[in-house]
Amino acid sequence: MAKTKKRKTGTDKLTHLDESGAARMVDVSAKPVSPRRAVASAEVRMAPETLTLILDEKVPKGDVFSVARIAGIQAAKRASDLIPLCHPLPLEAVEVRLEAQPPDRILITASTTVQARTGVEMEAMTAASVAALTIYDMCKAVDRGIVIGSIRLEEKSGGRSGTWRRGG
Amino acid sequence: MAKTKKRKTGTDKLTHLDESGAARMVDVSAKPVSPRRAVASAEVRMAPETLTLILDEKVPKGDVFSVARIAGIQAAKRASDLIPLCHPLPLEAVEVRLEAQPPDRILITASTTVQARTGVEMEAMTAASVAALTIYDMCKAVDRGIVIGSIRLEEKSGGRSGTWRRGG
Amino acid sequence: MAKTKKRKTGTDKLTHLDESGAARMVDVSAKPVSPRRAVASAEVRMAPETLTLILDEKVPKGDVFSVARIAGIQAAKRASDLIPLCHPLPLEAVEVRLEAQPPDRILITASTTVQARTGVEMEAMTAASVAALTIYDMCKAVDRGIVIGSIRLEEKSGGRSGTWRRGG
Amino acid sequence: MAKTKKRKTGTDKLTHLDESGAARMVDVSAKPVSPRRAVASAEVRMAPETLTLILDEKVPKGDVFSVARIAGIQAAKRASDLIPLCHPLPLEAVEVRLEAQPPDRILITASTTVQARTGVEMEAMTAASVAALTIYDMCKAVDRGIVIGSIRLEEKSGGRSGTWRRGG
Amino acid sequence: MAKTKKRKTGTDKLTHLDESGAARMVDVSAKPVSPRRAVASAEVRMAPETLTLILDEKVPKGDVFSVARIAGIQAAKRASDLIPLCHPLPLEAVEVRLEAQPPDRILITASTTVQARTGVEMEAMTAASVAALTIYDMCKAVDRGIVIGSIRLEEKSGGRSGTWRRGG
Amino acid sequence: MAKTKKRKTGTDKLTHLDESGAARMVDVSAKPVSPRRAVASAEVRMAPETLTLILDEKVPKGDVFSVARIAGIQAAKRASDLIPLCHPLPLEAVEVRLEAQPPDRILITASTTVQARTGVEMEAMTAASVAALTIYDMCKAVDRGIVIGSIRLEEKSGGRSGTWRRGG
Repeated sequence: MAKTKKRKTGTDKLTHLDESGAARMVDVSAKPVSPRRAVASAEVRMAPETLTLILDEKVPKGDVFSVARIAGIQAAKRASDLIPLCHPLPLEAVEVRLEAQPPDRILITASTTVQARTGVEMEAMTAASVAALTIYDMCKAVDRGIVIGSIRLEEKSGGRSGTWRRGG
Repeated sequence: MAKTKKRKTGTDKLTHLDESGAARMVDVSAKPVSPRRAVASAEVRMAPETLTLILDEKVPKGDVFSVARIAGIQAAKRASDLIPLCHPLPLEAVEVRLEAQPPDRILITASTTVQARTGVEMEAMTAASVAALTIYDMCKAVDRGIVIGSIRLEEKSGGRSGTWRRGG
Repeated sequence: MAKTKKRKTGTDKLTHLDESGAARMVDVSAKPVSPRRAVASAEVRMAPETLTLILDEKVPKGDVFSVARIAGIQAAKRASDLIPLCHPLPLEAVEVRLEAQPPDRILITASTTVQARTGVEMEAMTAASVAALTIYDMCKAVDRGIVIGSIRLEEKSGGRSGTWRRGG
Repeated sequence: MAKTKKRKTGTDKLTHLDESGAARMVDVSAKPVSPRRAVASAEVRMAPETLTLILDEKVPKGDVFSVARIAGIQAAKRASDLIPLCHPLPLEAVEVRLEAQPPDRILITASTTVQARTGVEMEAMTAASVAALTIYDMCKAVDRGIVIGSIRLEEKSGGRSGTWRRGG
Repeated sequence: MAKTKKRKTGTDKLTHLDESGAARMVDVSAKPVSPRRAVASAEVRMAPETLTLILDEKVPKGDVFSVARIAGIQAAKRASDLIPLCHPLPLEAVEVRLEAQPPDRILITASTTVQARTGVEMEAMTAASVAALTIYDMCKAVDRGIVIGSIRLEEKSGGRSGTWRRGG
Repeated sequence: MAKTKKRKTGTDKLTHLDESGAARMVDVSAKPVSPRRAVASAEVRMAPETLTLILDEKVPKGDVFSVARIAGIQAAKRASDLIPLCHPLPLEAVEVRLEAQPPDRILITASTTVQARTGVEMEAMTAASVAALTIYDMCKAVDRGIVIGSIRLEEKSGGRSGTWRRGG
């Protein structure tokens, strides 16, 4: 399993904390610039009637998916502003896809690309999360019980640690 | 079940869309100002070794929970900047609690308070989400497989629709 | 003509400058809270082929108008962050409408509402401007010559100076 | 005419939309870094008395032009935060010039420079727009009828599409 | 001495920390809205030649003081975004004054006003600090040794604790 | 003395102003990318009882230093958003250290690193300032008289002007 192996490579510490346990933005200046990519996903679970409502309104020109997509893309650009120890990166591509999976689920997939000294996982994770929150916001008047779940990294590539893919 | 009942009260439409399906920030100007409160939660699931690492480093003076807490509080203040159709609100209280639940889970609870014309659910949901993302960020070097789950509203009070609590 | 009359009421000075000519955020604390509304408009002029392209792509599920609308709504919320002497206001409603006017024009109308001590003109003006800039951004690869024009207040109501409407 | 010719080079699609019409931040990672520059302009048309007022107050130490200039420079840095699909760029120079053109016009010219994988047109356009909005804000108490017009790209250089200049 | 007396009134704890020492945004919802005002100051000490340079350039139309003033005003509006536990407040007035005190000092005074449930001290303190940082930025190429000092509250009024003035 | 010598190298003008005295973001595009580092410091002076209170609460798990540290790190990332003529830089490392110096002083040291065309002094200065403001915010209820002082550059390296260190 990828992550287990990873854990053996000697990075068994939380690098965002210095030797005294204090938070810091990790120094990445010695790392080379390399192409980085990350894909994250999130799901939004709702009452079937709520999904029907979204899809119905969507048929002609509804805006629910559009608003969530834009919110996710913009959030990717603000990841370093939201996540205290996250490095600012000049993102080169962001894509947020939403897929209705009837009867009760929307699947969100966000991918981010950059050439930088550190990875873009947080940008993809943030994009997926904020797209999901935006769906919640637009539907909460009819369904407060909606649950956002499984926000997770699907894969990342680039950098010293290379490619990682979520295990089957 | 609370949300089912809610769905019968006649708000069976997505109020963030106008009659043509276009997004808008809903007009709340006719609503009276009233005290509002919301509580949201999120969980972060990780490898047991990762949680041990966080808790170990935390013993003396580690910063993981502090950073996540601050990130969540600040994110609550930026909810309307992140969520496109969310109203800006002058938040009067924000609290973010983190609880380690060994062997493999951190539970985050965020509560928000305001006196306003509309509710503070999104502020609480955003706080919980960003606190969770921050934990992911600080631990991803040792455990990329961490999953953020169950971001959901626990309760809200105030406003015309009154009190709502997630059903048992 | 409304604005000429306005100019006679004795506010013949730039209130954003103090007696020495230095900029300040005007003190509105003595003004009563009252319901305020503003409507602003902007136009985007382009090559007819560009408008055709937007409308064609729009037919099934194109996102151009959606993205511009969301950008405008979010910009309204950031007006006081962008315009140095503009007061922060807890906006209660924002609506941004886009209308294609073949052969070569898109008309944008933004309206904003708040109960506050000062008006929401800048929020509406900013929303219309940023929606227009967003259309430019999405179309510039095919038509760099697009011109944004006539960003202007159409009407405002509320406050001591009452209702103002652009003259015929 | 430059733009007509441009339109023949095969980019006859809105690249900010994917094949399904959904918005995305275009992938520029395969483009080489090259020096980019853009110049945009905007005009602000007002009653002659308003321009006189600005110029009079300006004589000793008035701040109107200074405030607009600063607002424009800062807005250039926030272009990617305001325009949803705009790439974040590490701007290397921004200049905003304001020229009073009596009897009734202020001309704003903004230029931006960067070495990047994509152009800085939006940064220049945003700077010019926000400088114009700032003038409106400072003068609206005496002249609500002010109109912002002709926000447009004057020229851009760098990148695969090379130099473009607005035709006579 | 005011502050000693203050310390006897029973608020001998850091209210931004809960009983477990964790940070929170203090709940101010039970406090009444009242008019609040705060004045803060800061000084910038530099080589006499640097001050001469600023004043010389200022004579005709120099922008140093203008830029610092605008930066301070805008920073006041962002205080709650910068200071993690600071409440967002709808500021009603902000004024930033700069006074050259030859041979080597600039004195900055910032005042802020709001009607709210909590005070505006942080807004005034932040405005003074950022105005000072802006002067440093503009002069650092000629004088890296500039020191910003004595950022402090001068007075505040409103709220339960009433008026406070820095003791002689 | 370093700064006197510096002043002889021919940069005896405020480069953030153009020939007419107007503010601009200086063009750094012709400068080569080089490794840059800056260290800035600030002090917070308070009543001895206040420092005792901070240190007491800190013993088990108090959050005062953590909150200030995070606020400083985040502020470093926003320096170009706060300081009008400051260039945006993709920071590669930020560290903020706080040291209690009984009986009445906290010393803050911030260091920043980047590979860029211009220096990171403002990022370090801003981090130190905002960390200090955050301490003020958390302690002001018990000690309004706290004074932030001596915000200053300690050293910087990289770029054409090379290394600079504050003289003894």
